[in-house]
Amino acid sequence: MAGALLRLNGSALPRSTARRPCPSLPHRPMAVTMSQNQSYWASINAEIDAHLKQAIPLRPPREVFEPMRHLAFAAPQNNAPALCVAACELVGGHRDQATAAASALHLMHAASFAHEQLPLTDRPRPTSRPNTHHSYGPNIELLIPDGMMPFGFELLVKSDDPAQNNSGRILRVTTEIARAVGSQGMVDGQYHELECPQSDDNGWIEHVSKKKEGGFYACGAACGAILGGGSEEEIEKLRRFGLYVGMIQGMLHGVGRNEKGLAKVVEELRNLALKELEEFNGEKVEEIASFVKD
Amino acid sequence: MAGALLRLNGSALPRSTARRPCPSLPHRPMAVTMSQNQSYWASINAEIDAHLKQAIPLRPPREVFEPMRHLAFAAPQNNAPALCVAACELVGGHRDQATAAASALHLMHAASFAHEQLPLTDRPRPTSRPNTHHSYGPNIELLIPDGMMPFGFELLVKSDDPAQNNSGRILRVTTEIARAVGSQGMVDGQYHELECPQSDDNGWIEHVSKKKEGGFYACGAACGAILGGGSEEEIEKLRRFGLYVGMIQGMLHGVGRNEKGLAKVVEELRNLALKELEEFNGEKVEEIASFVKD
Repeated sequence: MAGALLRLNGSALPRSTARRPCPSLPHRPMAVTMSQNQSYWASINAEIDAHLKQAIPLRPPREVFEPMRHLAFAAPQNNAPALCVAACELVGGHRDQATAAASALHLMHAASFAHEQLPLTDRPRPTSRPNTHHSYGPNIELLIPDGMMPFGFELLVKSDDPAQNNSGRILRVTTEIARAVGSQGMVDGQYHELECPQSDDNGWIEHVSKKKEGGFYACGAACGAILGGGSEEEIEKLRRFGLYVGMIQGMLHGVGRNEKGLAKVVEELRNLALKELEEFNGEKVEEIASFVKD
Repeated sequence: MAGALLRLNGSALPRSTARRPCPSLPHRPMAVTMSQNQSYWASINAEIDAHLKQAIPLRPPREVFEPMRHLAFAAPQNNAPALCVAACELVGGHRDQATAAASALHLMHAASFAHEQLPLTDRPRPTSRPNTHHSYGPNIELLIPDGMMPFGFELLVKSDDPAQNNSGRILRVTTEIARAVGSQGMVDGQYHELECPQSDDNGWIEHVSKKKEGGFYACGAACGAILGGGSEEEIEKLRRFGLYVGMIQGMLHGVGRNEKGLAKVVEELRNLALKELEEFNGEKVEEIASFVKD
C-alpha cells in the first residue's frame, strides 16, 4: 500500500516546471512507474492543471498575477483535487462537473502551503519539513495566497450553470470547502502542527492528520460526489473514504512519517477506506481504490 | 464633508471591547456627536456585530476560536459592511437579506487587516500606520485570518434560503466578494501600498485607494443592491457610489491622508458619489447620502 501511495503521490504528471522549487521534498517522491491506475490519476490531474493554467493567465497587474501563477503551481502535489474528480465519476457524474471544484481545492492547498512556508521570526520549523526555496519576498508570499483563496471560491461559483440547474450543489460545495480549509479543519490541524510541542504521541499525529489531510481529502471526495449527483449515502461513504485516505497521506508523508508504530494504524485506516467502497459498482471502483491498494 | 466622514468613521457604535487593542489608530477617530443619520448606521453596525458574535462562539478548538473571535473584532471599523445593508434597504430590500453578506465583508476586512499587521522581517512599515498591539504570536496572526476568510464565505452561503429562492443572488454576491478581496482588488491595492515606493504622486494614491477601499466599498454597495433585489441599473449606480465613497475613505484616512492637494480630488469624488443617488427615492436616500454629506 505504501508503495502505491508513493507512486500515486508522484504520479508522473505532466506538471508545470514552476513546481520545480520543491523537487526535493522527501514526502513528495518522484514517480517510479506508471501503472494503468496511475494513468487514470494522471489524466485527471492534467485536466485540473489545464483548467488552472487557463484560469490564471499572466494578466495585469503582472506583479500580482505572476507570483500567483507561480505559487499556485509551486505547492507539492496534493491528491484531494483528483479524488474530487474521481468521486464525481464514481457516482456517475462527468468529470467536467467537478473540475472547477477540484481546481478550487488545489488553490486552497497551494495558498495554505505558501503560508506554511512563510518565514516568520518566531516560527519553529517542523523538523520533518525541508526549507523551501522562496522565489519572492515574504510580503508577496503572504499577500498572494490571500488572493488565491477567494479566487478558488470564484472559480467554483463561476462553474454554476443555469442549464444544469446546479446552483444548490455549487452552494453546498462552497460550504464544504470553506469548512474544510477553515478554523475547524485545516487551520486547526496547522495550529496543532505549528504551535503545540512536537510529540511522539500517535494521538497528536492522528489529530493533525485528521484535521489537515484527512478533512481536506474527505471534503474533496464529498464535493465530487455532490457535484456528480451522488445519493446522500454515497456522499457520506466517499467522505469517510477521503478521510481515511487523507489521514494515511498525513501519517505516511506528513507529520507522522518518521514515527514508529504507525504501520498498524495505517493498515486499519486502509481497511476502513476500502470498506467504504464495497457497495459501489463499475470500473471506477478499482481506480479509486488504487489510492490505498498496492 | 470630511467632518461627516470622520464622525461616521467612529460612528459611536456599541462595539465589542475586544476592539480596544487599536483605539489609538489615528485614521479611525472616536465619534464626537451622534446625529440622526449616525444612529441609522449605528443600528446597522449593531446588527452586523450581533450576527458575527453569534456566528463566532467560543467553541473548541478554543486555541483557534478565541484568537479568531479576537481578530474578527480587533480590526478598525470599516463601513463597507454597513453600506451593504444600507444599499439593500435603499433598493427596497429588508436588512436581514444583507446581514450575512455584510458580516462576510467584515470578516474579509478583519482577515486582511490582521495579515497587513503581521510583523514580517522585510516589511517596510507604512509611515501612515501606527504599530499595532499584537495579542498573539505571528503564527496565530497568520493562520487565523486564513480561517476567517473561508468562514466569511461559509456565513454568506449559509444564508441561502430556499423559501426566498435566492441562490442565484447568493452565488453572484460570493463572486463579487471573491473578486473584491482578490488579486485584482484588495490584494492589488495592498501590493502597491506595500511593495512599491511610497510616493507623493496622487496617481499612486488614487490607484491604491481605488483598488483597496474603493473596490471593497463598491462591492459592499453592489452586493447589498443585489441581495435587496435592485435592478441592474440600481446595482451599478450603487457600485459606483461605493467606489467613490471608498476612494474618499482611502484618501482621507488611509494611504493619502497626509498628502496635500487631495482636497480637490476628494471634492470631485463626493460630487460624483452624490450624483449616483439622484434617481433614488425614499427616506433611505438621505441616510445613505450622509456617507459623504455634512
